[in-house]
Amino acid sequence: MSTLPSAPHVGDIPPAEFRAAMHRAADLAADYLEHVGEYPVLARTEPGAVRAALPAAPPERAEPMEAILADYKRIVEPNLTHWNHPGFMAYFGITGSGPGIVGETLAAALNVNAMLWRTSPAATELEELVTDWMRQLVGLPEPFRGHINDTASVSSFIALAVARHRVPGLNIRAKGLAGRPEVPGLTVYCSDQAHSSIDKAVIALGLGHENLRKIPVDDAFRMDVASLDAAIAADRAAGRLPIAVVATAGTTSTTSVDPLPAIADVARREGIWLHVDAAYAGNAAVCPEYRALLQGWERADSIVFNPHKWLFTPVDCSLLYVRDVELLRSAFSLVPEYLRTPETGVTNLMDYGIQLGRRFRALKLWMVIRGFGAEGIRERIRLHCALGREFAEWVAREPGFEVVAPVPFSTVCFRATPRGSPESQDAANERILARVNDSGRVFLSHTQLRGRLVLRLTVGNLRTTREHVERAWALIREAASAS
Amino acid sequence: MSTLPSAPHVGDIPPAEFRAAMHRAADLAADYLEHVGEYPVLARTEPGAVRAALPAAPPERAEPMEAILADYKRIVEPNLTHWNHPGFMAYFGITGSGPGIVGETLAAALNVNAMLWRTSPAATELEELVTDWMRQLVGLPEPFRGHINDTASVSSFIALAVARHRVPGLNIRAKGLAGRPEVPGLTVYCSDQAHSSIDKAVIALGLGHENLRKIPVDDAFRMDVASLDAAIAADRAAGRLPIAVVATAGTTSTTSVDPLPAIADVARREGIWLHVDAAYAGNAAVCPEYRALLQGWERADSIVFNPHKWLFTPVDCSLLYVRDVELLRSAFSLVPEYLRTPETGVTNLMDYGIQLGRRFRALKLWMVIRGFGAEGIRERIRLHCALGREFAEWVAREPGFEVVAPVPFSTVCFRATPRGSPESQDAANERILARVNDSGRVFLSHTQLRGRLVLRLTVGNLRTTREHVERAWALIREAASAS
Repeated sequence: MSTLPSAPHVGDIPPAEFRAAMHRAADLAADYLEHVGEYPVLARTEPGAVRAALPAAPPERAEPMEAILADYKRIVEPNLTHWNHPGFMAYFGITGSGPGIVGETLAAALNVNAMLWRTSPAATELEELVTDWMRQLVGLPEPFRGHINDTASVSSFIALAVARHRVPGLNIRAKGLAGRPEVPGLTVYCSDQAHSSIDKAVIALGLGHENLRKIPVDDAFRMDVASLDAAIAADRAAGRLPIAVVATAGTTSTTSVDPLPAIADVARREGIWLHVDAAYAGNAAVCPEYRALLQGWERADSIVFNPHKWLFTPVDCSLLYVRDVELLRSAFSLVPEYLRTPETGVTNLMDYGIQLGRRFRALKLWMVIRGFGAEGIRERIRLHCALGREFAEWVAREPGFEVVAPVPFSTVCFRATPRGSPESQDAANERILARVNDSGRVFLSHTQLRGRLVLRLTVGNLRTTREHVERAWALIREAASAS
Repeated sequence: MSTLPSAPHVGDIPPAEFRAAMHRAADLAADYLEHVGEYPVLARTEPGAVRAALPAAPPERAEPMEAILADYKRIVEPNLTHWNHPGFMAYFGITGSGPGIVGETLAAALNVNAMLWRTSPAATELEELVTDWMRQLVGLPEPFRGHINDTASVSSFIALAVARHRVPGLNIRAKGLAGRPEVPGLTVYCSDQAHSSIDKAVIALGLGHENLRKIPVDDAFRMDVASLDAAIAADRAAGRLPIAVVATAGTTSTTSVDPLPAIADVARREGIWLHVDAAYAGNAAVCPEYRALLQGWERADSIVFNPHKWLFTPVDCSLLYVRDVELLRSAFSLVPEYLRTPETGVTNLMDYGIQLGRRFRALKLWMVIRGFGAEGIRERIRLHCALGREFAEWVAREPGFEVVAPVPFSTVCFRATPRGSPESQDAANERILARVNDSGRVFLSHTQLRGRLVLRLTVGNLRTTREHVERAWALIREAASAS
């Protein structure tokens, strides 16, 4: 009766081979993290070298896991920039900590899709639980409800989508923005230090990049609220409709914090959405002493911060908190027949954004919070900030160097100031950056402030100790004197 | 000189504890997959039970991994719907296969962010390599360039964003859609069987849900091209501008395939974007004999299919192929100073969408392709389709049952047809569904076709054998006769 092909290749790989490969992966992961400091932190790979080392066509026959893992060790692992390296002080330092890696491993084995409560009760409820734990840890009030997205880019995109959705009287969800004379130009505001994800969100939402107003900043790189007021007034006078302001708490260049209480006042007065992008600095609010810097964020309509940035959780894990979860749901919910379920009163995570598929990201965050404890997380954040401040003191004391922005957290913007034109100073700093990064022991990044090239050193990696920061400073000075 | 706090809690968890926890996780994963069939496939959890089993506040002190993993085993694992269960035949079956789980484990340990080539050369190049391997495996021509997104929802969103971006003369990226009398209403077309992600994309892009035209389907649930023609003509006559048509190759309800060659003709004639949503069925194109069903997709501007759906790769892994990668880049690229890098001629994956952060998703897909080989993947897809067809034959032969749609792949839409009104038939099928799902041995889902409730059985899980499909059929008949 059977019409099946006689198939020798069915099922998963044999259980014993899987178990052995997982134990091998456990050791590969543990070995890697014990020895990652021996790699050059910035990859020394030539463009194209990885592809060239691998067959251009897929294999016809199955290969044993042993062979695949050998290639992994030989070709993949060495050709990475090592974000786990204690000398990684570029962008924002991150760590996929032990508890987080264990969580990701198990999430991959479970392989549930938490689109509906019914398709994954524990994943849905653990996401509700850990986002509430995090809310408590950072001291946000109860009305805030969180969920997990992949990235802050998506979290901010969703927040601005809700801001657009709630514009009264226009029914943008149903009717859109185009071809409607009654819809005015919609404008969004952020400082000129805001993250590029805000630009991308505004473009993607069809608002137009030119309708994102980049408000100038003060001497400490914080949004100038008088300019914000003026921009909103000018837009209103021109018949445009301001819909949202994005305040950044911890800008990408300098980690400056916009004046949140004053911006919250403007948002309330103007009736516009306040989104706080705290992707990096929001994590620091686990320490009560850093909450003062974020004061006012509790008045936002939405807040994003990323445990995958500075809370030791493997990428990706971004938290979006909104005050009005029903509004979020009304912006996105759409339940086709095949996803209708009998349960009532439960959260279906698919309602909270554009993605139907949802990984079990809560598992790793739950393990991180338990694995370190609130106390352990606070101690680590404090250490990183102390290391940043200490580095800034060294720089400030050193002739021929300057710290170019305040250091509220663990990130320092600085530059060498050799005699010469601004352009020659930029070139000198660019050379210092290249030399330090070529050392393989430290990886720094750069930015531009007031039109000048600036170096950035940030501490956010669990493996980074004072010794590594000292080494970075020695390398920087060495590079400067060779410059 | 040090200003550091004396911090006992610094660094990651101790290396020995991490290594032991990873080996424990390896065994937990292997045990789980060996015994997953012993769980009820659909969770029997009461809403709120998981949260109630865990503390409402985060722990102050660190907990040992052993305690965390014990809670995982006790509270998390049993309170899931088991997508890995061989009796999971709802929605679309998926499997996070052994090689894929190993890949995710290592990706979590590496924890790189492949936003730029420089921040992760191997992750970037492996993504280019495996997406090209997949292009070859499914027989798409060379101009197609792929990249990996989290979900098909995001892949389709990006595709439609590019379609909107390329509308000539309007500079939508810079100027947006709102407040511009010169911008007509923009319209998008798909069949009334298209996935809800298309609705969400159109809403999110600011096009307006009402401007998504749901084209009726023929008897086999395929888009009616004459109706598409008519809808486009009517929109043009009304001054609206059609920008894209989404053809579905493997609809979510019945896995019907829209007439791709005819739709491609329309798209070419009208100068509009053709996006093919092949999230499920695109994977079947690894078998040459299924490519005939997808013929015409090679004329698309963009195509999505998901290895996390039917190619044994853990969620999330969605492939978006575009014909004109420069156009994709011009829709999204935005390089702030702090992400400027010296390399030229390399791919920076951040340019391909709204997300800056990018997990190393290529690693798992690379391991899956190698772990099964092209031949092994084909055999498994063939087996799943053969099982689906065989089940459909059983149903067709059984008095009191009917197959309600063609079965091109591994998914069968069917229903019991007891004597009575259509409403009483729906109620009977709803009861059958509930009884089968309550058994804990099989999980089916449902849909609605021509206004009637329909049951769906799909085979996509590596653990599902003929015996499981036979058991499902026995349970269904039993439930029907008890009904």
